[in-house]
Order: sequence, then C-alpha cells, then structure tokens
Amino acid sequence: MSAVCSRLLSVLEAVLPRGGSRALHEPEFAGNEWAYTKECIDSGWVSSAGKFVDEFESRLAQFTGTRHAVAVVNGTAALQVAVSLAGVQCGEEVIVPALTFVATANAVVHCGAIPHFVDSEETSLGIDADALRSHLKHIAERTGGCWRNRITGRRLAAIVPMHALGHPADMPRIMEVASAYALPVIEDAAESLGSTLGGQHTGTFGIVGTLSFNGNKIITTGGGGAILTADAALARHAKHLTTTAKRPHAWEFFHDEVGFNYRLPNLNAALGCAQLERLPDMLARKRRLAECYRSSFAETTGLAFIDEPPGTRSNFWLNAVRAELASTVERDAILGALIAAGYQCRPLWTLMHRLPMYQHCPRAPLPIAERLELSVIKLPSSASLIKH
Amino acid sequence: MSAVCSRLLSVLEAVLPRGGSRALHEPEFAGNEWAYTKECIDSGWVSSAGKFVDEFESRLAQFTGTRHAVAVVNGTAALQVAVSLAGVQCGEEVIVPALTFVATANAVVHCGAIPHFVDSEETSLGIDADALRSHLKHIAERTGGCWRNRITGRRLAAIVPMHALGHPADMPRIMEVASAYALPVIEDAAESLGSTLGGQHTGTFGIVGTLSFNGNKIITTGGGGAILTADAALARHAKHLTTTAKRPHAWEFFHDEVGFNYRLPNLNAALGCAQLERLPDMLARKRRLAECYRSSFAETTGLAFIDEPPGTRSNFWLNAVRAELASTVERDAILGALIAAGYQCRPLWTLMHRLPMYQHCPRAPLPIAERLELSVIKLPSSASLIKH
Repeated sequence: MSAVCSRLLSVLEAVLPRGGSRALHEPEFAGNEWAYTKECIDSGWVSSAGKFVDEFESRLAQFTGTRHAVAVVNGTAALQVAVSLAGVQCGEEVIVPALTFVATANAVVHCGAIPHFVDSEETSLGIDADALRSHLKHIAERTGGCWRNRITGRRLAAIVPMHALGHPADMPRIMEVASAYALPVIEDAAESLGSTLGGQHTGTFGIVGTLSFNGNKIITTGGGGAILTADAALARHAKHLTTTAKRPHAWEFFHDEVGFNYRLPNLNAALGCAQLERLPDMLARKRRLAECYRSSFAETTGLAFIDEPPGTRSNFWLNAVRAELASTVERDAILGALIAAGYQCRPLWTLMHRLPMYQHCPRAPLPIAERLELSVIKLPSSASLIKH
Repeated sequence: MSAVCSRLLSVLEAVLPRGGSRALHEPEFAGNEWAYTKECIDSGWVSSAGKFVDEFESRLAQFTGTRHAVAVVNGTAALQVAVSLAGVQCGEEVIVPALTFVATANAVVHCGAIPHFVDSEETSLGIDADALRSHLKHIAERTGGCWRNRITGRRLAAIVPMHALGHPADMPRIMEVASAYALPVIEDAAESLGSTLGGQHTGTFGIVGTLSFNGNKIITTGGGGAILTADAALARHAKHLTTTAKRPHAWEFFHDEVGFNYRLPNLNAALGCAQLERLPDMLARKRRLAECYRSSFAETTGLAFIDEPPGTRSNFWLNAVRAELASTVERDAILGALIAAGYQCRPLWTLMHRLPMYQHCPRAPLPIAERLELSVIKLPSSASLIKH
C-alpha cells in the first residue's frame, strides 16, 4: 500500500466515528418526514395536487433568498427546462464545465443543443473565468447580431456553471465574462443547496438556477429538483412547461405548447418540506465534519483538503482531498484499497470530453480539469457522522 | 337545463352513493401503503436504490404477463424512452391517434420526431385499423428501403396506439396494418393497467408498451410509469437509458450514451407495491361500478354508455357516456351544469391537431375522433364508490 493511501486511511479512521456511516453520503430522516408523508397518504393527495408542493416551493425560495422556486421531478429535468427557458435553441452551443456530473451536459443535449466544454479552476473546482475569457477571445466572433463559435459557426447560446461538491464557483467573475459575450447564465446548483458566495445563495446569480434533491444530496425528496429564478414571468413559464403546458380551465384539456410531465409529486414534496426544516442543523453538522477533515489533513503531507473558496460558505456536500498522483492507475489502486477497507470513496467524474457521446464536442484546453480528475478523492460526508 | 343534462344528472344521482366521491378519479390507500413507505423512510432508502423498485418491476411484469418491466418517473418519460427504443430518429414521423392525452404526442416530439395524427373508432375509442390502412395506402410509399410519407418525404418510423379510458384498442388489426408497413408498435397503455384483449394484457402486443401511475390512474405511485417489454435486450437498454446510461463500476463515473434521469424513486415504488397488491380488488369494484352505469344508461334515451369492446376486458378506468350533441357549446353547457352540481365530469381531450403546436402536423381525415370529441362525457369513476 502506498504512503498516500496509508495516510488517507489514518485520516478516515481518525475522523469517522466508530460505527458511523462509511457511505459517501447518506440521507438522514429525523424530523417530520414520516408525519408529512403519512399526511399525504391519509388525505389521498400524493400526486400532482396537494399543499406540500406549494409549501416546498415557497420554503425553497425563502431559504435561497430568491423570488420563485418551481419544484420538479429531478435535477436533470430542472436543468433541461432552465436551459430551454434561457432561450437556447436546437443546434446552438452551450458552455459547460468538462468537470461535472453527466447531467449538466445531458440537459443541454435534451434541449437539442451541443455542450462546449471549458476548464475549471483549482480553488473552486468550478469554471475558470480567466481561462474562459481567453478561450472565448480565441473562438468567439460576433456575426449576424450574435456571438458564434467561429470554428463551428454555431451560436453561443448560454453558459452553465456548476458548483462542484457544493463549493461555489466564482460567479461574479463568470458573470462578467458571460456579460461580455451576452451569454445568459444558468447555474447548476444541484450540489450546492446551502452554499453562498458573499452571502448570496448559489443558483441565484444567473437568470435561472437549479437544485437537486436526489437521495445522495444534502436533502432529499427521493427524486426531485427545483428551478430558482427572480423573474416572475420565467417562473410562470417554468411551472407551465413542467405541468404539460395545460391552460387553466374548469374542464378543458388545452395545451398551448410542447410541455413536460416534470412536476414533483406531493408525496416527494412532503419529504422535502420535512428535510428543509432540518437543513440548517445538517449544514452546521456538515461544517463541523469538514473542520475535522480540514484539521486532520493539515497535518498530513501530500494530501490537501479541498476547502471552501475565499469569500464563500460551502455546504461541504462532499468532502474531498487532493493527492499528487502520477496516473489513474495509482489513483485507482488507492480507491480500490479505501473501498476494500469499507470506505465509500470516489474519484471526481470522468471528464465529459472522454465520454463516447461527447468526445467530438467543441472544447477549450482542459489542463486543470484533467489534473483534478486525476488527483481528487471524495470522502464519506454524511451529516449523520456528527451528532448534535 | 337540457333533457340530456337532466337525464345525466338522474343517472349520476342513482349510481353514485350518497356521500361518495364525486371526483373523476381518486386514489385509494387501504393496504400496505403506510407500512412500505415508512419502511423506506426508516431504512433511509427513498431514492435510486432500494428493494421496492425491483419488487415493483417484478410484480408489474408478472401482473401484465410480460417478461420485463422498467419503472420510471412517469408515463410520459416511459413513452419517450419507448419511442426511442423502437428506433425512431429525429425528423421521422410517428403515427399517433388525434384522440389522446397530449403526452402521447409530446413523447414523440421529445424524441425529435413528428406526430402524424390518425382517426379513432367508435367502439374502442382507439386507432381505427381500417381507416389507418386506407390512409397509409394513400400517403405511404416505399422508397430507399423504408416506408415514407410521400407528401413530407419523411420516414414513417412507428405507430403508437393508445388505450383510451382503459378500453383496449383493436390491437390484432392494428398490428396487421403496422406489419404491412414495417412499423414497430409502441402501446401507450397509460390508462389501461388491468385491461386485456383475448386474455392478453394491453401494452404487451407491441415491441414495447408503457404504463402510468399518476395520481388519477387506477393505481398510483404519486408520479410514476413503466416500460413493458418481452425483449431482454430492450429491457436492459431501457434500464440503462433511464439511469443516466452509467456503466456498472465500483467507483468510476462512465456513461456511454446520452441517458436520462428517469428512474422511479424507491419511495414511490413502495407506494406502487402496496397499490398493486390491491389492484385485483379495485378492478373488481370498478367493474361493478361500470355495471351500475351500464344498466342505468340502458334505460336512458339519447345517452350511450361506452362499454368495453367485444373480446376485451376493460379496467373501466374512466366510465363515460356518449350523448348526441350538436355543438361544443351544447356540450360545454352540460359540463358546466354537471360540475356546478358537484360532479367532476370531463370531456375527452381536445384533439391533438387543434393544439397550436400540433396544428401543422400531418394527419388523416378525423371524422370519428371529431364526433367523439364532441359527444363523450367522462364520469366519476373512483373504485372507492363501490364498497367491498
């Protein structure tokens, strides 16, 4: 076993309580989850109507400090609708980090658009604004009243920063570059509920942002997601599109555009309401877990804890460490050993441009994303690891 | 108030028990819904993993008599994936009844294809096989190794019969026409869980079929759907596509095609397992409710109960009656009066070619669908209206 691996195992043994969860991230149901779920079943309101969807949306808007939240069936659906709401058309290009979960790129393709991959930065793991600016300077040209990729001729239609592992991407600087190229910003905040930058919640910097409440997220609705926006017209349109675009009427079935069946069922929203009530407590405990990891890694050579970027407050959804590794073979040997020892550790995602369906998509040079892909290891991070 | 309306009100008063539901269709939770849902919350398995998804899929396959069922997030998602699995490509035409819920056409568009609307028959409310044959004779030509619409030049890629209100469409004759034009058949059985034709379950005639478990369906998972198929390779592909197309691996995030986040959460599958256990009982009670409507309407002039077609056994998801009405104004006056009297009655759907996004799609003459649209009224049909 390599020295890096032994040191990682020592930290995990020191930080994680005996008998505690070794899973990457487990949900915790310790509040009103059962009470609210039971209320749905008892009342018969488990599906498209019922009070918990409205309640969940209003609590989400309040928590994130935006005006409107539209609850949907999952984070991918939220992002697809958000990209479409931002005006992206079939055959256009959307800038997406290469270092992200596949849903970010898939949502773009689900709109008929083409992802264009850009590099990330070491500190936040999010889109590198400087590298993005240089890349756009190189490939973007203004013709026909819009910015196009001069190589493909396609319109550059939007940019989708993603807040990786919960750490806020550098939104102010990304917004500046986006503004220079008239690109609407859609934030993929699937992993960053509870993370802020300068006190402002992630997902509320762009014209629209999205959340995920998948089972591995900081709070879960089983499956679920939400669209966040300060724009009332966009919010109305998001609700309309995600509920089959049916015009309100006492009995008529009249749909005025091609919509989706993406609304969150009331049963799942009920779980979400209960989970949201406990979110501040979970965030506090996850912060304490991050502190434990931080201080343990501070004394460990060759391993750097991935901390919240300066000026931000991360939800520390997934704690992670950067190891200086020579190859994926070395990384995989370490992952294999950690998993064999019972710790559900994971690498970052395979970079998007390495996946067969995205290998021919346009992209910027990706040196940092490639280094991060090789060196970052995600660690067990459940809130339940820290008791009250 | 018109004579037809008074007669309808008399039937509703006679058939529906005092104090019973006047809703169009309400779910009933009288079995293990609590127990299974609570088990999910207590165990922490509410999301993408957990035993209820497998259990629900295996029980669905058993109940419908097919080999494989893949549970997904709703009926529209099921249909979109089914259409894609049938080999439909972007820009091709898919034959769809004009008389259907909008999801049937939307699912085709979600695949990038174009719906081509055809007529229905009076008896089953489903696609009229004879009219379809005449229409295809008129518009289809075989060029370049496939059947094309000679007017648009587009390939005719598939056909999607839909079992309206639960009544089986005439699958043997539709399959014959489909076979003559080499069209794969995808059955939209969203409304027909429990309905059979010659003893064979709807959704199992074509290469793939789909179900819905929305809150208004005969059983509900809050939101949910399933893909049915006898083909093991198609089933594997359906599961792969609906779970982000991730290759199985202990830690690697490698996705080999553009997938969807369409899996059904375990929490919703738990509800589905409990509901399936009670389905035979609910079907029996819905059949008795249909008998009550049938005998009441038998003595009522000008109103014809919509019965199961000969040779079929319908789930009678929604009971409905055909009235001879002169105009939608007359129909809407009746609907307004019924609703004002507290009965949640509904027309059929607005025909697809009348919706703004579908008005320019290719279509056959639709005389029967237009007559049905004008004359059919759906009636309160909850299983709970009949006690054990």
